[in-house]
Amino acid sequence: MRLIEIGRIFTPFQHATGTPVQPSRAVGVEGHIELHRPYVEGLKDLAGFDRIWLIFWCDRSTEAKMSVTPYLDNAEHGLFATRTPARPNPLGLSCVRLLEINDNILRIADLDILNDTPLLDIKPYVPRYDNYPVQRCGWVDLVPDRAVVADDRFEKHDGAQ
Amino acid sequence: MRLIEIGRIFTPFQHATGTPVQPSRAVGVEGHIELHRPYVEGLKDLAGFDRIWLIFWCDRSTEAKMSVTPYLDNAEHGLFATRTPARPNPLGLSCVRLLEINDNILRIADLDILNDTPLLDIKPYVPRYDNYPVQRCGWVDLVPDRAVVADDRFEKHDGAQ
Repeated sequence: MRLIEIGRIFTPFQHATGTPVQPSRAVGVEGHIELHRPYVEGLKDLAGFDRIWLIFWCDRSTEAKMSVTPYLDNAEHGLFATRTPARPNPLGLSCVRLLEINDNILRIADLDILNDTPLLDIKPYVPRYDNYPVQRCGWVDLVPDRAVVADDRFEKHDGAQ
Repeated sequence: MRLIEIGRIFTPFQHATGTPVQPSRAVGVEGHIELHRPYVEGLKDLAGFDRIWLIFWCDRSTEAKMSVTPYLDNAEHGLFATRTPARPNPLGLSCVRLLEINDNILRIADLDILNDTPLLDIKPYVPRYDNYPVQRCGWVDLVPDRAVVADDRFEKHDGAQ
């Protein structure tokens, strides 16, 4: 199971510290994707969608620990009950706003992603498939719904990317 | 960028033909995840969430083409404007219902996933991060909202998995 980089995501965020932790908390933050040439034909008809899912590789995250204190809370939780970027497979998932497509460049907004991040996949966002009513969101129900930015707790500091 | 299998997803679907194409069209279809041992501690507090995102490896999908006719339509669209499983990185994304966790076994429902699929990640589903109002869903707005099942157009038939 080897991944291919299909493009790069460019954003205003050079470091984890200060980066919004979810797209819903990053409204208006703009950036762009540079899709690599072999994949440009796959963008046809995508401009008709207001939002898109990005799956990306969190290449600067630390090694995964199974118990973590996420940005949103002061208590420890199991890793899979959080969206912490340091995971066995550091796959990031963000629903961003699609502003414009020009050849291989996608202008996007509502970004909670570090600059120069490898992009793995783009999927259209479709509420009829992606919006589900739920009663319970575990520990997230118990923390205030406030704007939170990241710090460096899950970021590598050895200069390696 | 190498992926690690963190578990396996077991479902009633041995072949693509007849498999629902989205969890919203697979309500009540049950199955389970067997999480591999090193990751079980990461499940702590996950049982409080009604739904979870699964990211998985569509290991039986054909080679990606940049222009495809998706299950839901009779016309061709750019690959990234569809959720076709045959992609440069065959990453599947499904929001499934979490019924119960028992040690390393997660009982799940609303499954649109082939049996014995490698699991890559689990994230909690949180409407405040995952539900966005959108005006436009491109070509999907133009096709009827009906139950659709897959056929074998994106499935490998060489016996290899």
